[in-house]
Amino acid sequence: MFSAEDHLYMSRALQLAKQGCFTTSPNPNVGCVIVSDGVIVGEGFHLRAGEPHAEVHALRMAGDKARGATAYVTLEPCSHFGRTPPCADALVKAGVARVVAAMEDPNPQVSGRGMRRLAEAGIQVQSGLLQPQAEALNPGFIKRMRHGLPYVRLKLAASLDGRTALANGQSQWITSPAARADVQRWRAQSSAILTGADTVLADDPSLNVRWTQFPSSLQETYPAENIRQPVRVIVDSQQRIEPSARLFSISGEIWLARQEAQGQWPEQVQQLIVPLADSGKLDLTSLMQILAQRHMNEIWVEAGATLGGALLHAGLVDELIVYLAPKLMGNPARGLVNLPEFQHMSEVTGWQWQDVRKVGNDLRLILRPNKE
Amino acid sequence: MFSAEDHLYMSRALQLAKQGCFTTSPNPNVGCVIVSDGVIVGEGFHLRAGEPHAEVHALRMAGDKARGATAYVTLEPCSHFGRTPPCADALVKAGVARVVAAMEDPNPQVSGRGMRRLAEAGIQVQSGLLQPQAEALNPGFIKRMRHGLPYVRLKLAASLDGRTALANGQSQWITSPAARADVQRWRAQSSAILTGADTVLADDPSLNVRWTQFPSSLQETYPAENIRQPVRVIVDSQQRIEPSARLFSISGEIWLARQEAQGQWPEQVQQLIVPLADSGKLDLTSLMQILAQRHMNEIWVEAGATLGGALLHAGLVDELIVYLAPKLMGNPARGLVNLPEFQHMSEVTGWQWQDVRKVGNDLRLILRPNKE
Repeated sequence: MFSAEDHLYMSRALQLAKQGCFTTSPNPNVGCVIVSDGVIVGEGFHLRAGEPHAEVHALRMAGDKARGATAYVTLEPCSHFGRTPPCADALVKAGVARVVAAMEDPNPQVSGRGMRRLAEAGIQVQSGLLQPQAEALNPGFIKRMRHGLPYVRLKLAASLDGRTALANGQSQWITSPAARADVQRWRAQSSAILTGADTVLADDPSLNVRWTQFPSSLQETYPAENIRQPVRVIVDSQQRIEPSARLFSISGEIWLARQEAQGQWPEQVQQLIVPLADSGKLDLTSLMQILAQRHMNEIWVEAGATLGGALLHAGLVDELIVYLAPKLMGNPARGLVNLPEFQHMSEVTGWQWQDVRKVGNDLRLILRPNKE
Repeated sequence: MFSAEDHLYMSRALQLAKQGCFTTSPNPNVGCVIVSDGVIVGEGFHLRAGEPHAEVHALRMAGDKARGATAYVTLEPCSHFGRTPPCADALVKAGVARVVAAMEDPNPQVSGRGMRRLAEAGIQVQSGLLQPQAEALNPGFIKRMRHGLPYVRLKLAASLDGRTALANGQSQWITSPAARADVQRWRAQSSAILTGADTVLADDPSLNVRWTQFPSSLQETYPAENIRQPVRVIVDSQQRIEPSARLFSISGEIWLARQEAQGQWPEQVQQLIVPLADSGKLDLTSLMQILAQRHMNEIWVEAGATLGGALLHAGLVDELIVYLAPKLMGNPARGLVNLPEFQHMSEVTGWQWQDVRKVGNDLRLILRPNKE
């Protein structure tokens, strides 16, 4: 059904799409390649919400050469007016003969409409080429569209024996500078960085993206002037956060998840009112639904053992990013995640390895929930 | 100093030496290649204590062709009468013209003597070719000769968050069958398997080498009829072990490390009297010295958090073998190693990654002490 050339051009479109990964939020990463008579005549990717979509960039580059050409797009072209006109119309108007999409729109309300519009205009349409790779570009956007929840990455950092701090709280530095630079990369590609009041009160973190701390490879591809600061979300069940915390001294949106709105806050702050769970703390599933409604695709969680454990126990974590330092801190030291006291090994949830590599002097492990 | 051919033949000798790794204890692994006019005319390796050394096998195979040839040996040929006559004499008698050794004998009492004897007989001698690889063949033999201590590998198995059992003690099965098969390989190549009375009382283990549980690759290279059972060493500080434990129902030597000899034991059992440390428990450094005096090269430790932690704290562990299961068990679960409550991160010892790979569904990490 798809030729070797089709695979080649779609691979190129996927590669282009990735270039938007730090800036498109809340939009998805999309790439487009236009091919006429075996030659790439147009290329484009989506860079930032409100700016042109990938197809528009590629059509502009192709100009008249788009007529009779094939367009490869990593996501079904949109058929609705948003901040920009529908891409399906632009493709029709440019006279392309064939459109190949890696995947249909994950939004069940509009899925298939773009392709139908193209087909009705007499364009040959196909979809599903390299779909797994296309889905991997936008785990957050897809999960939000399909399930009304963001894609949640929980960052954990510990010694080999799963300890995050000595009994007295001392923890600097368990992981290496390279691991901390790697964290900056994950923060940068997230819609939001989420933490708990405990962490804010204990560590007084800034929780922003710091270009100077990027790994040098990232500094080259993501210039300082383009930095998008993710929203900082603080889970403040007991309303303990004060405006004196360091994070308020740094520009960028901050959302305080709380039981009720209270206090005077700088302009950058919004209070999200979240219902309580039986535990007396904020209901984390509700919070995540609220974040999805507010267009948060990918959430990067840097939290303590309590909030991390609660997110895990609620089944809200889609990916673990674990930095393991080559150290043994011993049983008196503090543990990684608070979970209930299980009675049987069968209650322990399993995970699947996705990636294992060295980052500086630490090991970085990526896992996703076991689907068995 | 050494040619490309020299490297080639020594590499072959190293490869041969490895074939003895399950059976030579307490002797070292040694390989030998004899080359005449660019052709390998003899090869051999040491298989078992009391049987011929590598050089003798290779010389027998070479016959008259050894005259004027070059012999490559992974360890300096011996110059003393042990259970077999000195190999240096055999090489002289066979008329070889040149001997290349990867390393000198690590025993400071005899180091260099074999080479001197060869040189005095007019043979050209060289050593140090691929020495790091040769040392890696015999970490236990070398450490015992140089420091009077065995090479100690501590096996750890835990969830991602460093937990070995639920709070109620349940722990089957945290790691995968492939990890347990891998453990059989490590046991098989060790001189002794060491554990503590706690583990014997809690788990009633056999602690023997079980051919049927070997990975299939090992079953092919190490036939069941050749199995050598490592000595089982039980640290029984409080003299709590009873003859009814399962390990006594399985043949093979068992050494009980205790404060004093006591009780009636099966013939396979010896009691090792070990002085007490200030802690009121057996002094583990003294125990290791005793094990080295008894020719134990490599010790494989499968112990609980207390004995494991004590060996670590005493600086007696040369290698960590950590099996990490892709699970999170949570802070109420039991921890990996008991260490003192450190006050500063600077007290935490660092390790160096040696190897990281997947074994079945687990990750196997090998680390050695940080030499910084």
